[in-house]
Amino acid sequence: MKIRNFLMVASLLVPLGMTAAPKDYTKYVDPFIGADGGGYAFCGACVPFGMVKLGPDCNNLTENAGWQKDTDIVGFSHTHLNGSGGGCKYGNVLFMASTGELDPNDYASPYSGERAEVGMFSVNLDRWDVSARLSASAHAGFHEYTFPKSESSNIFVDLGKFLASIEMQEFVGSEVTILSDHEIQGYTRIRNGWNYSKAYTVYFYADFDRAADSFGTWIEGKKEPGKRCQADHNTKCGAWFSYSTNAGDKVRVKVGISYMGYNKARENAMELGTWNIEDTRAEAVDKWNDILSQVDVESSDEDRMKIFYSSMYRIFLQPSDYNGENPVWKTSSPYYGDYHAIWDTFRATHPFINIFRPTIGGDMVQSLVDIYENDKYMPDARSSHSTGRTQGGSNCDMLVADAYVKGIRNVDYEKALDAMIKNATVPPGDDERQYGRGGLPDYNRLGYVSTDYERGCSRTFEYSANDYAIAVLAKGLGKEDIYKEYLKKASNWKNLWNPEISSFGFSGFAWPRNGDGTWLSDPDFTVFSSGSFDHQFYETFSWELSFYVPHDVNALIAMMGGREKFIERLDTYFRESFPGKRDELLFYTKLVGLCQISNEPCFLVPSMYAYVNQPYKTAKIVRRILDTQYTSARDGVPGNDDSGSMGAWYAFHCLGFYPNAGQDVYLISSPVFPKTVLKMEDGKELTILAKKTSDRNIYIQSARLNGKPLDRCWLRHSEIVNGGTLEFEMGPKPSSWASSGELPPSMSTGITL
Amino acid sequence: MKIRNFLMVASLLVPLGMTAAPKDYTKYVDPFIGADGGGYAFCGACVPFGMVKLGPDCNNLTENAGWQKDTDIVGFSHTHLNGSGGGCKYGNVLFMASTGELDPNDYASPYSGERAEVGMFSVNLDRWDVSARLSASAHAGFHEYTFPKSESSNIFVDLGKFLASIEMQEFVGSEVTILSDHEIQGYTRIRNGWNYSKAYTVYFYADFDRAADSFGTWIEGKKEPGKRCQADHNTKCGAWFSYSTNAGDKVRVKVGISYMGYNKARENAMELGTWNIEDTRAEAVDKWNDILSQVDVESSDEDRMKIFYSSMYRIFLQPSDYNGENPVWKTSSPYYGDYHAIWDTFRATHPFINIFRPTIGGDMVQSLVDIYENDKYMPDARSSHSTGRTQGGSNCDMLVADAYVKGIRNVDYEKALDAMIKNATVPPGDDERQYGRGGLPDYNRLGYVSTDYERGCSRTFEYSANDYAIAVLAKGLGKEDIYKEYLKKASNWKNLWNPEISSFGFSGFAWPRNGDGTWLSDPDFTVFSSGSFDHQFYETFSWELSFYVPHDVNALIAMMGGREKFIERLDTYFRESFPGKRDELLFYTKLVGLCQISNEPCFLVPSMYAYVNQPYKTAKIVRRILDTQYTSARDGVPGNDDSGSMGAWYAFHCLGFYPNAGQDVYLISSPVFPKTVLKMEDGKELTILAKKTSDRNIYIQSARLNGKPLDRCWLRHSEIVNGGTLEFEMGPKPSSWASSGELPPSMSTGITL
Repeated sequence: MKIRNFLMVASLLVPLGMTAAPKDYTKYVDPFIGADGGGYAFCGACVPFGMVKLGPDCNNLTENAGWQKDTDIVGFSHTHLNGSGGGCKYGNVLFMASTGELDPNDYASPYSGERAEVGMFSVNLDRWDVSARLSASAHAGFHEYTFPKSESSNIFVDLGKFLASIEMQEFVGSEVTILSDHEIQGYTRIRNGWNYSKAYTVYFYADFDRAADSFGTWIEGKKEPGKRCQADHNTKCGAWFSYSTNAGDKVRVKVGISYMGYNKARENAMELGTWNIEDTRAEAVDKWNDILSQVDVESSDEDRMKIFYSSMYRIFLQPSDYNGENPVWKTSSPYYGDYHAIWDTFRATHPFINIFRPTIGGDMVQSLVDIYENDKYMPDARSSHSTGRTQGGSNCDMLVADAYVKGIRNVDYEKALDAMIKNATVPPGDDERQYGRGGLPDYNRLGYVSTDYERGCSRTFEYSANDYAIAVLAKGLGKEDIYKEYLKKASNWKNLWNPEISSFGFSGFAWPRNGDGTWLSDPDFTVFSSGSFDHQFYETFSWELSFYVPHDVNALIAMMGGREKFIERLDTYFRESFPGKRDELLFYTKLVGLCQISNEPCFLVPSMYAYVNQPYKTAKIVRRILDTQYTSARDGVPGNDDSGSMGAWYAFHCLGFYPNAGQDVYLISSPVFPKTVLKMEDGKELTILAKKTSDRNIYIQSARLNGKPLDRCWLRHSEIVNGGTLEFEMGPKPSSWASSGELPPSMSTGITL
Repeated sequence: MKIRNFLMVASLLVPLGMTAAPKDYTKYVDPFIGADGGGYAFCGACVPFGMVKLGPDCNNLTENAGWQKDTDIVGFSHTHLNGSGGGCKYGNVLFMASTGELDPNDYASPYSGERAEVGMFSVNLDRWDVSARLSASAHAGFHEYTFPKSESSNIFVDLGKFLASIEMQEFVGSEVTILSDHEIQGYTRIRNGWNYSKAYTVYFYADFDRAADSFGTWIEGKKEPGKRCQADHNTKCGAWFSYSTNAGDKVRVKVGISYMGYNKARENAMELGTWNIEDTRAEAVDKWNDILSQVDVESSDEDRMKIFYSSMYRIFLQPSDYNGENPVWKTSSPYYGDYHAIWDTFRATHPFINIFRPTIGGDMVQSLVDIYENDKYMPDARSSHSTGRTQGGSNCDMLVADAYVKGIRNVDYEKALDAMIKNATVPPGDDERQYGRGGLPDYNRLGYVSTDYERGCSRTFEYSANDYAIAVLAKGLGKEDIYKEYLKKASNWKNLWNPEISSFGFSGFAWPRNGDGTWLSDPDFTVFSSGSFDHQFYETFSWELSFYVPHDVNALIAMMGGREKFIERLDTYFRESFPGKRDELLFYTKLVGLCQISNEPCFLVPSMYAYVNQPYKTAKIVRRILDTQYTSARDGVPGNDDSGSMGAWYAFHCLGFYPNAGQDVYLISSPVFPKTVLKMEDGKELTILAKKTSDRNIYIQSARLNGKPLDRCWLRHSEIVNGGTLEFEMGPKPSSWASSGELPPSMSTGITL
């Protein structure tokens, strides 16, 4: 009977659980976090991986994602990137509302009351006394404008607009057609910008819920009332609907977007069901909860949860799902875009996706392979259906290896290996910033990229890691010759190790080398010299890049003079302050010691104490960065979010571990939340308990995995995704936990598959 | 009074002359010449340089331009190339008519009564008892279909169709919309093919002169009667209008085509004025007469005139005028497309244009410079707004030099020089068939392109000529250092001159060389070995390519052992028959001796006797080729017409001279017509008189230019375009004319500017 009673209770509980309101994780998400202060976070409305990212565009733009404080809103466009540095991208098909006589050359408005939520962006346009609410589905934007009493309340589309700053996108052409008193369609065509994009065309179809009282179009800023069409003479055009409104009248617009054509844009508009924007928002919230609920955090620290879920949210903004929207070739492969850039995202963003959405993670890699088959190389970055740029190595190789070692199998790895070998063997020629590996003739002849090429040091170190990724996949596919060849090349970083360079008492640093084998000799060049594309160190500097041997840390330790020297060097890196000219570092650089957490090359370094069994030092520095560099404010991200890269670094460390991308290794840091349940795509769950964890109790005292003691400070992928329980006992002081456990694998200890 | 009477007569004559019917040169044009037998001539309707080339497309296609004998007509599409080898290109927006129940998967029809005229193509579709007439303006096609009595007479558009054979174009997507009972619009999107094209989109707007009784669309071959739209899911779609007709009922359609968008396509459709197709034809005829009248031939040999004017007609089919139709960047530069390929056309087609339409000739070169500025390199070939392929050298350099030395000044030559130097210094990388100079690292390091690369011999010889072109322009722009550098490189062909190779008693031939300096040693490789892209000799062979030093014939003569040996070698080349395996040569090869007149590398060789003052030998061989290799039949062109290349060779030699492209030199051959008046763009006229010229009297006995004896067998550009009179006395036997006159300039004798 006892059993029977229990079953009865259970059978009561299940339906109760089902009817209870599901937990809403989106309430912890603030899309404004990182939107200010150089984070370039996208604050508008979208679904996970949404092709349409509908948000506000401001003038005098320096924040790349469209929104900016203390300036005017120009309008609301449907395409954006999240967190990308360099020049602005997208900002296509811009809608705006106004009142009074419409001036197509002057309609920007100061704003107030801006509010960003998952699936909804709201703002008041103060100049026009209009308020706007925006929501989105995967391929369509929903606009709702609330007007004052006015004889002439206008909604219009400006197809000559796009985001522009440095590294400018260029206008190519546009057309517009007013189809009826409630429908407009048109396109805008843009090219160039940061990724050297070919011209791309964004088509839209807009359906209004109220018939216009009057309408017109304009071309090159000149209005033509009543004219229904503007043809494309490489000219900028737009169209408007005007209404006589009473105070509080709303006009709603569904805008379908397509890269294919108008009829597809019209189909995409049909994604939006009712004319109630709350329905669209609710669908977006549901989709986001589907993903965010895969990490169920229990914590009393709401601010920390807000930063965590906002970080996780940003991970799933990109790459964008362009399935069904490939205008550049017909394919049966998955098709994703807005890899922007893999140099940023291979380190943490994609590994995060590969844990929680491995099918999509595989689709993203397969999409890269398909791009290789149809457009020369796998990209390092790609947006608007054009590949470019390449920042350092061919880090798409890392994505392939990461998916492979993590058991993701919906990828054609034979072709992927072809693509990787092309990276490693075929010079891209012409503009080496666009495809493949620049300086490859040097690398394959000398074993390093000399000073004859830009970014020689960054490229050499990254190519070495990329070559290891090739070796890993070749080994897995049973191609022993290729494995051996690339395993050897994976040590090429040693060719740029200059033992003569010293700093803070340490000798041996990454150093630019000339084509004739001599070292760069330039009194102005120091271990702190840093720059961008035209520099030898890309967004990093010698002190930092010298740690970038993620695949062979044991060899690095030896090169640095052994375990103690290595530990001292790490300690120094996180302790010392920057002695050089600060302006040698990049604009948004935020430093923790010498560690410039605002850019990605340092991402793994805080976890590298794991390779010398000093996890407590990792815990200390990671917690310091989490606590001091990330906040829930609008400027709460330490650098460009770079398609969720900053977010992924934060999110991983909150869970308590961080991936060494491309390898079956996660390095344990310091779990932040008392309880976190990770829910895998296949239903398995890993419960992470961090007993007594707090801002003081940051050190792991002991750990158990599925009840058994865990005396090493790293995990394998299977130990996460197979589920179970990972328990930590936290305390305020470093412990001896894992101080003598098995070390994480390093290349010299063999390939882990 | 006499004077007064004369004036009165004159004043009567002038109005009489103006009202008399102007001479119609188009009656001598048969667009079918070269359409069969591998000429790939375009036989449809178009205006000079017309973007729209409307013509029939057949199934089982091997003739690249759409039409083919002994097969079925699939329909009539709006985009074609003239004479291009390799894979088919274009064939977009295909319209067709039928009767009865429409099957979108089976509508091709046998045909009869095909008739090609300037501005009009007519044919009967026997399966459907429908006759079709087609005409065209620059950006629109006019269709007129005459139906039998039928309950269901159909006109339809199939957007899934395109020309396909080897080196396939690939389908990307399409959409269609029926706008009203007399309007349809849609697009087709295609990629790849011979030029590795990016996806390109061809939009159309079609206006019918009769309201449809019923309509429908289809997708992937499945009909949906009454459905007005098909969206693009990378799918093939189409649309139809059906009519109940009485016998003889006509339905006319105006189809505007655009690469920009629908509204531009609609504007382009408006180019067609009335609904009378004869009006459209008349406008096309006028435009063609504007050009053809620039060479006014007086001759009783109507067959020869037919071949001549048909040849001249084909010269002005391409490049296509894409001004106002650039969807890939916004520019203030002229914009031309369908350079296909400059490797073919730099030799004669463009020099012909540069005599008669120098403004357009300059615009075409400026367009290349603009392409360089916006799309990496000047192209060797370019169609559908995509650059590719490169056949041999960077022969766009030759076009620049040709325009420059001929005084054409509407080109930004400073930027053109930048573009040429990029060709010569920046390896294109990746696929070297697409851009720039393949094998450049070898060429700039070793002085030749080694066997490590394909087309090493052809490239080295052509690069040498290209380097001379760079030197010419640099000299003209006063850049002495560049001039000297490239003048030196212009001798690089000598690095592939192998003195050990012998044939027919001659020693020293162009020969493949390995990267280590050794010569290719392969018993199967002979001076007659020939191939395509993957061969060392591209569409030529060592015997022939060894003559290809157009810029330094004096040095070539010396290399060949002096004047007498050179003459003997030329004699042998035109006399001997091919001793090797015939199948080593390309498919359409037609030989005159060893001279394969079916491909362009031989084009200059018949004229090279001028460099040793033996013009009578040139006269003899040229006349032999004109008489035996060209006819007025449909297979009357000896090889692929290659965008008018074969036509230009024929036309020049009929005038009596042939250009050494890129130099201010025309080599005199044997004028064919008794009187030819060349009318320049600026109104100047050159009258060429060839007294007693006939099939027997092919040898020049004496010559006078503007009354003064001309004792050299070559002309400068100014001597042609400044006008005047050029008189020849012809006879049946070689004479001593020009046997001791000034030789044409050769590099070693100094730059001629």
